[in-house]
Amino acid sequence: MGRGRERLVGMASARAMYHQLADTYRAKIVTEELKPGDRLPTEQELGEEFNITRGTVRDGLKVLVNEGLIVPARPRGYFVRPHELSYVRPQAEWRKQPASPEMDRWMEDQTVLGRTPSQHISVEIIPPPAKVAERLGLNEGDLVVARRRIRYIDDEPFNLNDSFYSYDLIKGSEILNPTDIPRGTNQALADLGYEQVRAIDEVEARMPLPDEVNRLQLGPGNPVLVHRVTGFTIDDKPVRCTVNVLIGSKHVMLFERSKAVGGSVS
Amino acid sequence: MGRGRERLVGMASARAMYHQLADTYRAKIVTEELKPGDRLPTEQELGEEFNITRGTVRDGLKVLVNEGLIVPARPRGYFVRPHELSYVRPQAEWRKQPASPEMDRWMEDQTVLGRTPSQHISVEIIPPPAKVAERLGLNEGDLVVARRRIRYIDDEPFNLNDSFYSYDLIKGSEILNPTDIPRGTNQALADLGYEQVRAIDEVEARMPLPDEVNRLQLGPGNPVLVHRVTGFTIDDKPVRCTVNVLIGSKHVMLFERSKAVGGSVS
Repeated sequence: MGRGRERLVGMASARAMYHQLADTYRAKIVTEELKPGDRLPTEQELGEEFNITRGTVRDGLKVLVNEGLIVPARPRGYFVRPHELSYVRPQAEWRKQPASPEMDRWMEDQTVLGRTPSQHISVEIIPPPAKVAERLGLNEGDLVVARRRIRYIDDEPFNLNDSFYSYDLIKGSEILNPTDIPRGTNQALADLGYEQVRAIDEVEARMPLPDEVNRLQLGPGNPVLVHRVTGFTIDDKPVRCTVNVLIGSKHVMLFERSKAVGGSVS
Repeated sequence: MGRGRERLVGMASARAMYHQLADTYRAKIVTEELKPGDRLPTEQELGEEFNITRGTVRDGLKVLVNEGLIVPARPRGYFVRPHELSYVRPQAEWRKQPASPEMDRWMEDQTVLGRTPSQHISVEIIPPPAKVAERLGLNEGDLVVARRRIRYIDDEPFNLNDSFYSYDLIKGSEILNPTDIPRGTNQALADLGYEQVRAIDEVEARMPLPDEVNRLQLGPGNPVLVHRVTGFTIDDKPVRCTVNVLIGSKHVMLFERSKAVGGSVS
């Protein structure tokens, strides 16, 4: 026990030192004091700046690499990652054009030049996760179809998109095929008689679960945005629960709203 | 250099071990295999489960304490933190009642019994942060009023709420007073002739900046939700940019939307 304690203290202070480097440079990047494409000081310069060994410098830089904020380009050094923010606009599911000219312009900024998207789809029939069962109003013993998608950009995992449906509702339908449905699963569900006319979006930030780390090939220290959508029919029946897991450093979610004339709001 | 390298490797593997414990138990908590109020195994049991020293067990548990997932209650042990999720519904700024009965019900679940909210407000006049200048369409040399609020629940920091306004627009007004404005700053801004009729919400997940760690008294490993709101007048003039920083483990953001009859959507 005495030895365990000593080790903990030694580790905690080395941890503090490399976190200090990571915190300082994360702040410079997020506030854009260092801009996309800028080169960071060399390992030696950073060692002198924080009075730490090169090993500890590398630990600190690794935190920022894992968070997707910097990219190593040896032997030239470390660079602030070019912005590759992807905008996620849940409202676009039903309205393709943004209502706001500013949103239009912000989204245009995301010029995805020459990047190749791809996806992998798998389908499982499982007992529902607790939160999904609650959202879909399922009972003990009910099964769900989990339609899981990993989206890649240039072969790098980008986000997870898992949709859950009551198995009773969709059995025998094409939604169970682990292939892309060109007209979209929402339309396929509508064709079965379950058109969605409203939805609730829930958004959380947390550290990824081991399974997510694995599927997204994440390094430690990289939080995710969890976006859960529950879709309802005109009869208020919840027919779909989608859980999107977005790499924090690569996504911004956008919503727009306006005050209608009568005081009601969209 | 040789020594730095050795130290890095030793540290990396201890780090891996305590992260494994944190990852495993985070997954159990998030999936609700362990429910709010449940007791975790003892330090000794966890040491045996992962074959690690008690010091390393404590490091792993500390990660979960810092993330707000478990609470230490010595000598009884560690417990899954009772849910104290706060729901943030940006649309409520203009529409008090949710449109969806489900959202109403989910929000009721958050029974905040006997908790005492408080806040601290400060006001600064500063050159705008880059992202704020961009959102508000400001020019080089323009100043903004930063109205910063820390919200507390039972004296624990809960979230940050910083609103930025062009200094030219609001100088001489009560918005510069570092005190609460009972009718709300949006109404105060409307009274100056700048009523907001639409807004864009941007939501990101990232690790907190040093200043945020400090203001929110966060431990390491606790990601934040960053919610940025830009409010526009009827003439499309951006008049307010608010940056809310929400502790990830304590907040869920909620949005609702519905498909209108003609195919347009709110």
